[in-house]
Amino acid sequence: MSDPLVISIDAMGGDHGPAVTVPGVERATKFLPSGTRFLLHGDAGAIQEALDGSPGLVGRCEVRPASFVIGMDMRPAHAMRRGKGSSMWNAVEAVKTGEAHAAVSAGNTGALMAVSRLLLRMMADLDRPALVANWPTARGVTAVLDVGANVACDAERLVEFAILGAAFHHALHHSTRPTVGLLNVGSEDEKGHEEVRGANRLLRETQFDLDYRGFVEGDDIPKGTVDVIVTDGFTGNVALKTAEGLARFFGSELRAALMADPISRLGAFVSQRALKRMRERLDPGQVKGGPFLGLKGIVVKSHGGTDARGFAGAIRQAAELAQSDFAAEIDRNLQRLTAAAHEAEATEERSIA
Amino acid sequence: MSDPLVISIDAMGGDHGPAVTVPGVERATKFLPSGTRFLLHGDAGAIQEALDGSPGLVGRCEVRPASFVIGMDMRPAHAMRRGKGSSMWNAVEAVKTGEAHAAVSAGNTGALMAVSRLLLRMMADLDRPALVANWPTARGVTAVLDVGANVACDAERLVEFAILGAAFHHALHHSTRPTVGLLNVGSEDEKGHEEVRGANRLLRETQFDLDYRGFVEGDDIPKGTVDVIVTDGFTGNVALKTAEGLARFFGSELRAALMADPISRLGAFVSQRALKRMRERLDPGQVKGGPFLGLKGIVVKSHGGTDARGFAGAIRQAAELAQSDFAAEIDRNLQRLTAAAHEAEATEERSIA
Repeated sequence: MSDPLVISIDAMGGDHGPAVTVPGVERATKFLPSGTRFLLHGDAGAIQEALDGSPGLVGRCEVRPASFVIGMDMRPAHAMRRGKGSSMWNAVEAVKTGEAHAAVSAGNTGALMAVSRLLLRMMADLDRPALVANWPTARGVTAVLDVGANVACDAERLVEFAILGAAFHHALHHSTRPTVGLLNVGSEDEKGHEEVRGANRLLRETQFDLDYRGFVEGDDIPKGTVDVIVTDGFTGNVALKTAEGLARFFGSELRAALMADPISRLGAFVSQRALKRMRERLDPGQVKGGPFLGLKGIVVKSHGGTDARGFAGAIRQAAELAQSDFAAEIDRNLQRLTAAAHEAEATEERSIA
Repeated sequence: MSDPLVISIDAMGGDHGPAVTVPGVERATKFLPSGTRFLLHGDAGAIQEALDGSPGLVGRCEVRPASFVIGMDMRPAHAMRRGKGSSMWNAVEAVKTGEAHAAVSAGNTGALMAVSRLLLRMMADLDRPALVANWPTARGVTAVLDVGANVACDAERLVEFAILGAAFHHALHHSTRPTVGLLNVGSEDEKGHEEVRGANRLLRETQFDLDYRGFVEGDDIPKGTVDVIVTDGFTGNVALKTAEGLARFFGSELRAALMADPISRLGAFVSQRALKRMRERLDPGQVKGGPFLGLKGIVVKSHGGTDARGFAGAIRQAAELAQSDFAAEIDRNLQRLTAAAHEAEATEERSIA
């Protein structure tokens, strides 16, 4: 597989289907290499209709008819058994066959994860892909993972997330040697449960291509203290959803405060451009969606309710990962982890013997 | 022990000692029963100096000299062995001896927890007190617990938090039958790890004095979907600190946006009263501190960096808990939990036999 870059799109996924995904593809072309091509999987008529309204895409897309769509409420197990031939399945399968460098879908998250695992397989030792959030911070963007898939994580799993997150941040945000923190309830070595303390030891004692900075706490996420924050999927999911809810709450409180009386309304009118800029910078939509990390292939999930701009952002992530040495970097670090874990086991056996 | 209400104060605790705690006490008198008295433990000279500047407290305080202060960095184990005679120790001991109805301290959290457990003991089955946050939401205040002390929690522990949180919300926020949600990564019964699924079953199948509403997610915290949100101390601590960090981040982004250019500055000047009201309503200081739940006695921790207003809020919490049927309500529910847990064990044994 060589140039040009090919991105496989589940054109039917998400709440709005081709009406959002096709304009999203058009928008994405503005910042992708000029020769990039797209495979659009789904209902040929609906896709063609959307393409007719997107003159920028002429000659860059190939429509791949798919006979059905995996619904937003289909169970993952059902999607694995019966999903063959759907727009989502075909989009991922194009990565497996080597026709495309990456796949993007705004469809059912659980189904996409199940189909991706089935078709592409996981990298060594990982059971399930990790979901990463691009979290806007005071200093840029911090990658937080896992934010959903793996609710229970042992120490090695947390270290795997550190490896995946660092490679992701390096590829997408161009940090040369990403700083990594492990989320905990305090910064001292003895804080937290066994899993985080074990991961802390492994990360301190093993040489990985990343700059491990030790434990961080919840307020370090919005501060942007490190490039990558590692946690189990339960804690990460709660932190992300709490933040999204809080962003909406602040937004509505701000609106209410500025509409409370005529004087405030006048002030709000005068400041409206500045307030709009701020909302864009804090947009929680920024943190939704992201790649499934740990697969042998690139699959990016876009938020189901996304607009064309959000879907274009997901395509951009897919393209940047496909063009980087992301997979090779992860491979190198995973091999070091395997060696370190074997070493730790051998030491333990010797001390028992 | 009967009227009048007596509150025992660690006057030396926190970053500012009597300069904040004594004005905090004076401020608290405005909303406490008129006969309320205070025991002020600590350096008699420093306390008297602060009292000289607080004419509202004449005749309502008794200064109890203490020979030393437990520092903010003293280890909990050290505080248990060597804390006797300190202002914090004496403040808690006054609750044990029955001289006071409740104790308040802004001192070292770990030390206060250790000294309180040692002197007052825990209620049946609980190992460590739970920390509860009063979280400002779109609909009022939600009690979130545990936010720090218990990083690993089994199903029964989570149910105990539900019981403590409901009694707390009832006493402090006057909900007649508090609604309770269990924090998870989704709302379906099969979501999450074994501990939350087990707690969900126990809460559904046992009759407690609370209105259990099932699983909630992170964004339900700021929404105020329920009165009480239950989680383990690891997840709760991360969620709380993430929210505090985010509130600061929003505040600084808002200031930056409104100072970006002369037009925005003018708008901000015009809206300043509305913006100040909003900041007060969202004040993350509101969520700091709170009682240690599960002790046989009332101890309220105030944030170390608090001002007089925050310390007065902690005193108010202590007084409201002391004047309610808080302890009796918890006792009743804990007995039901013990019975339900025994029943579950017996059923399991029968099914094995």
